[in-house]
Amino acid sequence: MKAIDGGICAVKGVKAWGIKSGKMGLGVIVAEGNAAGMFTMNKVIAAPLIVTREHIKKHGKLSALIVNSGNANAFTGEQGVEDARKMACMLADALSINPEYVAVASTGVIGRPLNMEWITSNLPKVIDSLKADNEGSHAAAKAIMTTDKKMKEIAVELDSGIRIGAIAKGAGMIEPKMGTMLCFAYTDAIIAQELLHECLTNAVNKSFNMVVVDGDTSTNDMVLLTATGESGIQPLIEEFQQGLDYVLIELGKMIASDGEGATRLIEAKVTGALYDEDARLAAKAIVRSPLVKTAIFGKDPNWGRVIAAVGYSGAEVDQQKLSLTFSDGKNMIQLVNKGKILATDDHVLSLLGKIMGESKVDIIVDLGLGQSSATAWGCDLTYDYVRINAEYTT
Amino acid sequence: MKAIDGGICAVKGVKAWGIKSGKMGLGVIVAEGNAAGMFTMNKVIAAPLIVTREHIKKHGKLSALIVNSGNANAFTGEQGVEDARKMACMLADALSINPEYVAVASTGVIGRPLNMEWITSNLPKVIDSLKADNEGSHAAAKAIMTTDKKMKEIAVELDSGIRIGAIAKGAGMIEPKMGTMLCFAYTDAIIAQELLHECLTNAVNKSFNMVVVDGDTSTNDMVLLTATGESGIQPLIEEFQQGLDYVLIELGKMIASDGEGATRLIEAKVTGALYDEDARLAAKAIVRSPLVKTAIFGKDPNWGRVIAAVGYSGAEVDQQKLSLTFSDGKNMIQLVNKGKILATDDHVLSLLGKIMGESKVDIIVDLGLGQSSATAWGCDLTYDYVRINAEYTT
Repeated sequence: MKAIDGGICAVKGVKAWGIKSGKMGLGVIVAEGNAAGMFTMNKVIAAPLIVTREHIKKHGKLSALIVNSGNANAFTGEQGVEDARKMACMLADALSINPEYVAVASTGVIGRPLNMEWITSNLPKVIDSLKADNEGSHAAAKAIMTTDKKMKEIAVELDSGIRIGAIAKGAGMIEPKMGTMLCFAYTDAIIAQELLHECLTNAVNKSFNMVVVDGDTSTNDMVLLTATGESGIQPLIEEFQQGLDYVLIELGKMIASDGEGATRLIEAKVTGALYDEDARLAAKAIVRSPLVKTAIFGKDPNWGRVIAAVGYSGAEVDQQKLSLTFSDGKNMIQLVNKGKILATDDHVLSLLGKIMGESKVDIIVDLGLGQSSATAWGCDLTYDYVRINAEYTT
Repeated sequence: MKAIDGGICAVKGVKAWGIKSGKMGLGVIVAEGNAAGMFTMNKVIAAPLIVTREHIKKHGKLSALIVNSGNANAFTGEQGVEDARKMACMLADALSINPEYVAVASTGVIGRPLNMEWITSNLPKVIDSLKADNEGSHAAAKAIMTTDKKMKEIAVELDSGIRIGAIAKGAGMIEPKMGTMLCFAYTDAIIAQELLHECLTNAVNKSFNMVVVDGDTSTNDMVLLTATGESGIQPLIEEFQQGLDYVLIELGKMIASDGEGATRLIEAKVTGALYDEDARLAAKAIVRSPLVKTAIFGKDPNWGRVIAAVGYSGAEVDQQKLSLTFSDGKNMIQLVNKGKILATDDHVLSLLGKIMGESKVDIIVDLGLGQSSATAWGCDLTYDYVRINAEYTT
């Protein structure tokens, strides 16, 4: 497997474009094939998700996608669902396809009616500009950004020649429970819909479902995976799963490190758990904890907050067996070994403070109880998170 | 029922004192009687809680309490438990009582050995200063403060003449699941231990367990209630419960409004839920949401974030039946009525921004599904929360 350029357009059969104008954005992706989708578990589910879920459920296939940013079309009642259907129809008409093969996605402010006029008037020029190259993927990836600072795009080529590419947006309201804010992934593999869905579920559980920016689960989380089949290759499923895991985990890390206001990526790895679910609970509790996040922002060696988070995570914990290590990838410092505090002196704590100041901070917790492990990603909690979210709509 | 002065020392049979020196504090409360306690559900439970829980379980009675601030004596292994036992013994010796009737509590940084020398050398002067008046309660309330800005103290006299008084500390690592950081409550009612425990459980579930500052559950949460019986009155249980509810709810509100960095108290009331648990989940999700908290800090009328929080809370929600109102106690503004957005125009949103700028912001959500309701309290998320927690130990 190797990383390649081109984002989603590195995948054969994918064309894309998008525009951004102030807070509003509009993107279109055209790619025909078997498709799988995962959606937010928020009970207030946004209108475009209702429509897209219905379409995928019916045929298991997609031909194109229309996405807008700046307005989530969430909590907008029947009008919202009508607007989402209208978006699908407009794109379907322009491409001469069945609207039931069109996915619709939205991201932005909740509880405001969609500006359909803006979408209607800008859609033709997006469609006219559709491109099957680098530039096309970039334009679509930019069109879906809201408070994201960085564009999120990735592509890989597996050893068999199959390609997988994806774009995503993240930033805030991030504790995905199914998909994340928005991610559109494509592959040119030939792969049956049921298998595609299974692979997507596996990969999402290891990637986006292990990312926390602030612990708020969005109304608009959506991950879509379409297989165009245009490589002509039927992959070994292990190879494909590995590739998809890699793509979504890398995007998940991009989302965490570009979380609103973030200055550092936090990776929490929990090993030695009794059950997989325990490892996941503990890892997510660490990256969710505002106290861990602010300590890392402040380079404050207050490692006891990690212990507290693991303790309340719901995972089975025996404090006599727990070990804790911090690392920045180069330096590694063990603070607790099987319940024994190794170091409280100033030298060790100042080294820990230094590690916390690096751009990626790894926290490794060994529960010492079993064989299960899990990794979660998050970011620090900073003044800028507060600033961005105190000023978002106004 | 009426509010009275004197804090815990308003209750007959209670003497207290405390000292604070830099980040270290030491307090003692002497009060003999039936006692009930509730403790954190964090699986990393601090040493003093292990000792206190054991003592209360054994006899259902307490004679005195020793509490230190600045160090949580949490995740300190066997040495921590020995230190906590030693604290109980030192106080018991000085008062010539059985150490098993002594409660021990701690609050502060996790994972550092207790400075027993400081405690040992300062305990005699605290004991010598014990007072049964205003000043005694104040001194104890001050001794347990960490990042608290305000002392938390309350007392009421019920119509029957019975008194209930309590002190507490809060500020950060606040999402109690049993008790809260620390609360010591006293009454002079004559009341059996089992009944006392039942009343305490009821009151804590309505008060501290509905408070969120940051969603971190402490290793040291502890609520103790001692009944000295010195009023000579056996209360009607409804009256006593009502009084105790009031005392703990008021303290819970004090903790929320004095949350680390807080500038506003947020009260989220959820009505029309199918089940009590649904109402509790939804109310707590609102006050826990970093996005709701930052919006209120920024007076940003982004009310859709409340809807998103209710949606992911786990409560049963039907977006067609949901109503949402904001109030500052004087002005009230309904934003959603049974799923219909009432107002998106600038006038209404600027009025909402104004309400969000008041010192207490009420959020009322009617789920429109059933008869259950619950109220939760929290605070806004501000630059100061980040500052305080980026700098806590260093």
